[in-house]
Amino acid sequence: MKTPEIVHSIANLHARVGAWRKNGARVGMVPTMGALHEGHLSLVRETQSRADKVVASIFVNPAQFAPHEDFDRYPRTLETDAEKLAGVGLDLIFAPSVAEMYPAGFATKIDVGGPSLGLETDFRPHFFGGVATVVTKLLTATLPDVAVFGEKDYQQLMVIKRLTVDLNLPVEIVGAPIIREADGLAMSSRNAYLKPDERAVAGRMNVVLNDAVARLKHGDAVDQVEAFGKSDLLEAGFNSVDYVAVRDAATLERIARLDRPARILAAAKIGGTRLIDNMAA
Amino acid sequence: MKTPEIVHSIANLHARVGAWRKNGARVGMVPTMGALHEGHLSLVRETQSRADKVVASIFVNPAQFAPHEDFDRYPRTLETDAEKLAGVGLDLIFAPSVAEMYPAGFATKIDVGGPSLGLETDFRPHFFGGVATVVTKLLTATLPDVAVFGEKDYQQLMVIKRLTVDLNLPVEIVGAPIIREADGLAMSSRNAYLKPDERAVAGRMNVVLNDAVARLKHGDAVDQVEAFGKSDLLEAGFNSVDYVAVRDAATLERIARLDRPARILAAAKIGGTRLIDNMAA
Repeated sequence: MKTPEIVHSIANLHARVGAWRKNGARVGMVPTMGALHEGHLSLVRETQSRADKVVASIFVNPAQFAPHEDFDRYPRTLETDAEKLAGVGLDLIFAPSVAEMYPAGFATKIDVGGPSLGLETDFRPHFFGGVATVVTKLLTATLPDVAVFGEKDYQQLMVIKRLTVDLNLPVEIVGAPIIREADGLAMSSRNAYLKPDERAVAGRMNVVLNDAVARLKHGDAVDQVEAFGKSDLLEAGFNSVDYVAVRDAATLERIARLDRPARILAAAKIGGTRLIDNMAA
Repeated sequence: MKTPEIVHSIANLHARVGAWRKNGARVGMVPTMGALHEGHLSLVRETQSRADKVVASIFVNPAQFAPHEDFDRYPRTLETDAEKLAGVGLDLIFAPSVAEMYPAGFATKIDVGGPSLGLETDFRPHFFGGVATVVTKLLTATLPDVAVFGEKDYQQLMVIKRLTVDLNLPVEIVGAPIIREADGLAMSSRNAYLKPDERAVAGRMNVVLNDAVARLKHGDAVDQVEAFGKSDLLEAGFNSVDYVAVRDAATLERIARLDRPARILAAAKIGGTRLIDNMAA
């Protein structure tokens, strides 16, 4: 079980990926912020099924955190991340510094409207600007044939699909299913913040969403399902609920009834930790 | 003298450029808005000296015009443009429709700070957002090895250099010298708007800039040179002057004295026509 090579510069990344491509390899990519869990490893396996060589990036992107958010305390565990990636046979890790991604004079920002409007943006207005810019840079630095993102960050996945189409980036974007703990809690690096009693509450979010999907399929009105979902989360022990929202599955536009593929998305806080989850409806 | 093939879709462009690349050709690109003059043709020749195959794009980009500007009356002359490009042996024209470049649901905008701040942005605040987005799209649609832009739009050239570095776009950006009429007027598609008496005034802009460069090299203070340049343009018959500015040649930041490579840039109006020009200092 050989630890994958780690490159820190875009130049070295280009050299490695260029050599693969010269040999006719199809190249896949999994962008991450590290602190890897089984969800990330499932993304690597999904990518391996679609490409000959796979690179994972590990970069905690300051541009997608607001000053009051958890950039400083976000877990950084490169050594154990590399071991986990060795375990699934990853080929290469790209772990750039902040200065490599945003050198002096850096001045460009990518702004995606459409699917980025509302939901997370109502509570983290800086978020998708930071995500869109860094994902574009990671994709252009790597130039993969395919990149796989988790459906856990569903709105992010839709924003990335939108921007790669809009900017003609020559890459296929694939969404991979959410990986869950035994009680259904969506795996997330931020689950590490949860105290034991908070962890028990967190496990209720997926149950509440399951119930909401059942109500939708039973024919309940969207606004009623959203209101029930919100009160269910509060009753389950969440301190506050940012949103429970039923949206068009592709555009994330509001819908009045379940007359097309839809997605129910939720964000809520327990203690200092903010969790998100979503399900097809 | 064969008229170059014209493709209208990104898919066809990919197919043509992909075939070139498969044969080992180095690919060059010249993005234009059409209404071609000798300045554009010099860009094609410059590109031909740096690449095996050259594609020119012709696209009047609505995103870089404000509602009150000249998008509707901007000259559209595809047939004579194609003849001129045939005359210099261009290989391929990419002439997309607005719907091809901005299909339904398009939602992405690229914003470049740094060199885009001030100068044109003070008078055309929408301009560089539109330019940065369309140039990125033209570059990702074509994926050339080298793209050549005129120094006539000097601030635009600096913005494009900035964004291609910031977004790791795998293309070399080259600036080519301004091509001038016999009296020194910088060639521009917008010169076609000028009435004969306005045309005579327009020819004074380069003389004023030449004088300003001489004053700078003589040791005059930057703010004095800018003030003199502005009054010289008004005396020459321009109706109004947007700016005469001496800036750092790379970052376009303000400078107090000529202690580094600098550029003097000017924008002024005659009648309904706005002209720009610039020179090294």
